[in-house]
Amino acid sequence: MSGSIGSTLRLTLFGRSHGPSVGMTLTGVPAGKTVSMDELQAFLKRRAPGRSPLSTSRREADVPRFLSGLSGSVTDGAPITAVIDNTDVRPEDYKNLSSVPRPGHADYTAYVKYGRIESGGGQFSGRMTAALCVAGGICLQLLEQEGIRIISRIASVGAAEDCGELLSSTAQKPFPVVNDACGEAMQQAILQAKAAGDSLGGTIQCRVLGLPAGVGEPLFGGLEGRISAAVFGIPAVKGVSFGSGFAGTRLRGSENNDLFMIKNGKIVTKTNHCGGILGGISTGMYIDLHVAVKPTPSISLPQESIDLEKMQPVTLKISGRHDPCIVPRAVPCVEAAAAFAVYDALLESRKEQTWN
Amino acid sequence: MSGSIGSTLRLTLFGRSHGPSVGMTLTGVPAGKTVSMDELQAFLKRRAPGRSPLSTSRREADVPRFLSGLSGSVTDGAPITAVIDNTDVRPEDYKNLSSVPRPGHADYTAYVKYGRIESGGGQFSGRMTAALCVAGGICLQLLEQEGIRIISRIASVGAAEDCGELLSSTAQKPFPVVNDACGEAMQQAILQAKAAGDSLGGTIQCRVLGLPAGVGEPLFGGLEGRISAAVFGIPAVKGVSFGSGFAGTRLRGSENNDLFMIKNGKIVTKTNHCGGILGGISTGMYIDLHVAVKPTPSISLPQESIDLEKMQPVTLKISGRHDPCIVPRAVPCVEAAAAFAVYDALLESRKEQTWN
Amino acid sequence: MSGSIGSTLRLTLFGRSHGPSVGMTLTGVPAGKTVSMDELQAFLKRRAPGRSPLSTSRREADVPRFLSGLSGSVTDGAPITAVIDNTDVRPEDYKNLSSVPRPGHADYTAYVKYGRIESGGGQFSGRMTAALCVAGGICLQLLEQEGIRIISRIASVGAAEDCGELLSSTAQKPFPVVNDACGEAMQQAILQAKAAGDSLGGTIQCRVLGLPAGVGEPLFGGLEGRISAAVFGIPAVKGVSFGSGFAGTRLRGSENNDLFMIKNGKIVTKTNHCGGILGGISTGMYIDLHVAVKPTPSISLPQESIDLEKMQPVTLKISGRHDPCIVPRAVPCVEAAAAFAVYDALLESRKEQTWN
Amino acid sequence: MSGSIGSTLRLTLFGRSHGPSVGMTLTGVPAGKTVSMDELQAFLKRRAPGRSPLSTSRREADVPRFLSGLSGSVTDGAPITAVIDNTDVRPEDYKNLSSVPRPGHADYTAYVKYGRIESGGGQFSGRMTAALCVAGGICLQLLEQEGIRIISRIASVGAAEDCGELLSSTAQKPFPVVNDACGEAMQQAILQAKAAGDSLGGTIQCRVLGLPAGVGEPLFGGLEGRISAAVFGIPAVKGVSFGSGFAGTRLRGSENNDLFMIKNGKIVTKTNHCGGILGGISTGMYIDLHVAVKPTPSISLPQESIDLEKMQPVTLKISGRHDPCIVPRAVPCVEAAAAFAVYDALLESRKEQTWN
Repeated sequence: MSGSIGSTLRLTLFGRSHGPSVGMTLTGVPAGKTVSMDELQAFLKRRAPGRSPLSTSRREADVPRFLSGLSGSVTDGAPITAVIDNTDVRPEDYKNLSSVPRPGHADYTAYVKYGRIESGGGQFSGRMTAALCVAGGICLQLLEQEGIRIISRIASVGAAEDCGELLSSTAQKPFPVVNDACGEAMQQAILQAKAAGDSLGGTIQCRVLGLPAGVGEPLFGGLEGRISAAVFGIPAVKGVSFGSGFAGTRLRGSENNDLFMIKNGKIVTKTNHCGGILGGISTGMYIDLHVAVKPTPSISLPQESIDLEKMQPVTLKISGRHDPCIVPRAVPCVEAAAAFAVYDALLESRKEQTWN
Repeated sequence: MSGSIGSTLRLTLFGRSHGPSVGMTLTGVPAGKTVSMDELQAFLKRRAPGRSPLSTSRREADVPRFLSGLSGSVTDGAPITAVIDNTDVRPEDYKNLSSVPRPGHADYTAYVKYGRIESGGGQFSGRMTAALCVAGGICLQLLEQEGIRIISRIASVGAAEDCGELLSSTAQKPFPVVNDACGEAMQQAILQAKAAGDSLGGTIQCRVLGLPAGVGEPLFGGLEGRISAAVFGIPAVKGVSFGSGFAGTRLRGSENNDLFMIKNGKIVTKTNHCGGILGGISTGMYIDLHVAVKPTPSISLPQESIDLEKMQPVTLKISGRHDPCIVPRAVPCVEAAAAFAVYDALLESRKEQTWN
Repeated sequence: MSGSIGSTLRLTLFGRSHGPSVGMTLTGVPAGKTVSMDELQAFLKRRAPGRSPLSTSRREADVPRFLSGLSGSVTDGAPITAVIDNTDVRPEDYKNLSSVPRPGHADYTAYVKYGRIESGGGQFSGRMTAALCVAGGICLQLLEQEGIRIISRIASVGAAEDCGELLSSTAQKPFPVVNDACGEAMQQAILQAKAAGDSLGGTIQCRVLGLPAGVGEPLFGGLEGRISAAVFGIPAVKGVSFGSGFAGTRLRGSENNDLFMIKNGKIVTKTNHCGGILGGISTGMYIDLHVAVKPTPSISLPQESIDLEKMQPVTLKISGRHDPCIVPRAVPCVEAAAAFAVYDALLESRKEQTWN
Repeated sequence: MSGSIGSTLRLTLFGRSHGPSVGMTLTGVPAGKTVSMDELQAFLKRRAPGRSPLSTSRREADVPRFLSGLSGSVTDGAPITAVIDNTDVRPEDYKNLSSVPRPGHADYTAYVKYGRIESGGGQFSGRMTAALCVAGGICLQLLEQEGIRIISRIASVGAAEDCGELLSSTAQKPFPVVNDACGEAMQQAILQAKAAGDSLGGTIQCRVLGLPAGVGEPLFGGLEGRISAAVFGIPAVKGVSFGSGFAGTRLRGSENNDLFMIKNGKIVTKTNHCGGILGGISTGMYIDLHVAVKPTPSISLPQESIDLEKMQPVTLKISGRHDPCIVPRAVPCVEAAAAFAVYDALLESRKEQTWN
């Protein structure tokens, strides 16, 4: 099942960082749906590198070519396959790493599993998320056609937190936070870490708006499991929580329970500590999740490692291009992963509801 | 895919809280493996209700009957199917709830999806985890036969935290913590919440010891995604993190990266902030995860809800039996889910390594 | 994936011939569907042994007990699990076979794969089709609620063929053929083979009536592949063809092509050599398939085999109860397999059509 | 699951006849395997069009470009994705068909399902088998590295049959039969049909040599079901049988059973009427199957059809390029499908055997 996910939809990512291209094959999308290439390109641009001093200087146009599944801009029922060519590859940056695993990267585990360290992270590279964003960007558009929107923000970078509630899209902002003053502090922290040859992590909050009640399934088919399985597919993600999450474990039941009430003739909950999911199924409130992104493992500071061939300790200094904080570019990736999982669950739920 | 999970292994839970039984069907277990019924029963006992003043007074023997897959105590290659009869069912406790959803439970979402509120939570009930523990208890034994062990503890209840590092099993303790004094404080907190008609949540830490490096896959086949998908199948789980998790997002890369070193001729990392997983693949260090369990939604305090048929606000008072804190009984459930996911990944990884 | 099949629906058969029970777990059936137990029982009776001199004298009531998935007679969205107890087990009949594989049976391959010959065929036994018929019998009812019916007949036994076209159900007949005189000759042939200590095979024709055009998918999702994968799950099936099948390979294109015409305002084909399937998708005409069932491998005549432990040739004489011709009892099994595959494809197709 | 197949391996075909390319994504192939591009190209050439007066004059180089999964000629553990560009597309040949379905083609069912008739058959086109042959050609090489070979032949064309037993490869022959005189008669028959503006069908025999005993599973995991599901993915296939197949239904059990004997210290069967499969599992003898290929539906003769937009009968004359008999080019496709299914089952079986 390597690299694949989903039930009604099924997504496979392929390619590698320093190979000819990365890409994806997505099956199960209904025929007859319109996909706007402009919108997709705008979405991909949010993830693309090289746009600010906060991110790697590697530049990729990230323009997907569709090999299958779209006739013009309409889905035709065949599997959707798209590739993004790797145009700015500099494998020479990675040459000296061939037998020395970078701490915090997949180099060592790749070596154990596949027998070698792949240049630039290979199929483990963050670049694979460009392909994820093609799939997720399509799902986002198809969800929007159903009145469902996904918004997100950087909730924290290191110790610096955003303020305010996430109520509308931050996608148009160069630094996607609710409160720009908080965002300014985060950016300062990133630049300081960069200056120190170091890196920062952070958290991302993501919300799904407009999802009707009744989507999802009990137990292993629940929305939490579906969404987390997709989000953990993003390299560097180390935690996922829904609603009040870890903080909610410090509340009492009487505080954490969301009371039901009628508002404008509709059943809603007064609070949304459950993150819009009860028993794995959507309540009709917004889905709410937080994602932990670890500090970028590539840092310029010297680090201890091992030469795997000589079995000797070495001090490693990484000189390739890298982001001092991956969190800003991970924001659209979280949206993409969530969009995939939610659209998959929605398709499944439609099937049941129709049938009855 | 309702209720099913896994790739090489495939697990389906069936039944419901107040029906004749709960059970599971597990495919993909190799033939010729020995399963000790005594060990399995001892494991199930850790989850079973009615053992202490901290848990529901519902009593169930929780003895699985195997309908398929075992010839004597040896797996025979057929799907393993086991059922646990529901012997202490009192549906009358739940009668008055039939059109009033309990806050924090799946009643409302079940009503939307299936058209009715099932007595005792139906297929959403915590009782379904008895079936999960049968499957997971088998996987635990098969992992142990490979030298892989899973240990866990209550890491916190409400604001009360355990101290000390999780190094060995707490399974023999009536209250599974590392530091019993800390455990005492947690139990006091639970009793206080119970006395107040309220409930508490908490967190569980789980470690997988002895897993060799190289198990897992990149991207969607990664261990984080596999394990979290299984753990989120446990009702009441709202968050899963690996290694330094959410706290690790506040560290710098130079602090969070795990440096490689040679110890006794083996490659290890000095720290284990990555939770034993890099690029979705095991590093050879222990797997380390934390799980957030929400406060039990069933509380005795009056709560606002809606009569779904009359579309009127009502005040609800829950009188059925329930745990003031589900965390202690969720500990073996987390082990079971982790054991299933890890054994599944291990089987897949063996295939590849042999083949080469 | 051992023992499992399906995409939207997913069916797992479990148990074994001489164990406590056989059974099945079926996921993906929509909630709120009514299943008549009387109808299901009547369907199972068509497969049950011991009803005529033509079949084994083993008698089984074949009454399924539902452990999950039905609340009363209505599907409740949980996986459907049912078991049929094995009540008339005589393992002593099989004792002398423990190291000598019966020709034509799975004894030898079971020995190689699982290390032993299972009494009575174990999980390879024709008895497993009782569980298949529970799943298929449910699917048949749910298809009928959509106006889709499945009919079938014995098309041949040995060299004796049925005459006439299969236009209506033969389910009420003790020997399910279109032309009873032909059926009489078949039965004589079976009795003669039985008297000679020998056995016969035959073919079964099955038709699906009322399936709308547009169900199925291209390539690997096609109806032929879906149906054949289910039908080959029936032990003793060695061939499956659709429409003109193997005979159609002797026609020219101009003879085999089905010309389109308008009839009562609807598009139909003049002939149905394609068996109601073009490009893997239903044409709106009836689905038409033929199934080859091999002669029962259990015969009373002495046969050469090998004692696997002594690695010596032995002459084997089988004394257990067995059918001289399994074809009559395989008829409902083919219907069950086809019903499962068609209902699975129909559910998938509904999803797409609604969505658009 | 549209367009996908397999369990440990998973294959998705994408693209369409007159789009930019056809291609495939194949997951689950172990890392570290060598694939010879020359061998693969030689295999693809056997399927490619335009090589003889017996086939369509459409010419395609059919050179796959690998976008992922191979580093040099070695599998690297990432999904294998390859595309073949469509270089000789003449959509103008198909223009006049846009609302008139060709008899025997998927045009009508595509119209019902997807709302339009795709030029050249779209994703239903025989051209999709070029992508299948890339996947199957890789599997063939990996099987050969394990000592397993697949051979096949044209067994019949129309009423003309091949003679002799299939014992060795016919792959080097321009017309792949065992007996060239028989092949000559077949070719004459094809030329006559072509001259008459008509077409012929035929049957293909395929054998898998060297597969060890014990591969496959009972019931739905059986080799017959796995292989047939893959083979029915080839457009124009309408029947699949194993061993004595439909003819075997006319034998008695005493004639059809394969008796066990010891030969050179190994257990074999005297005959192989079961086609090398008992209980879904390989016996260690060769796997033997026959495949029915319908006469090419594209013929030059006028045929009755319907203008779907005007809902009027029309007479259709097809002028595009097409094969008067697709059977010769289907031979490598059957090998490819069988290779995929067998390698998938072998990987699964290895996993189990190792583990024990």
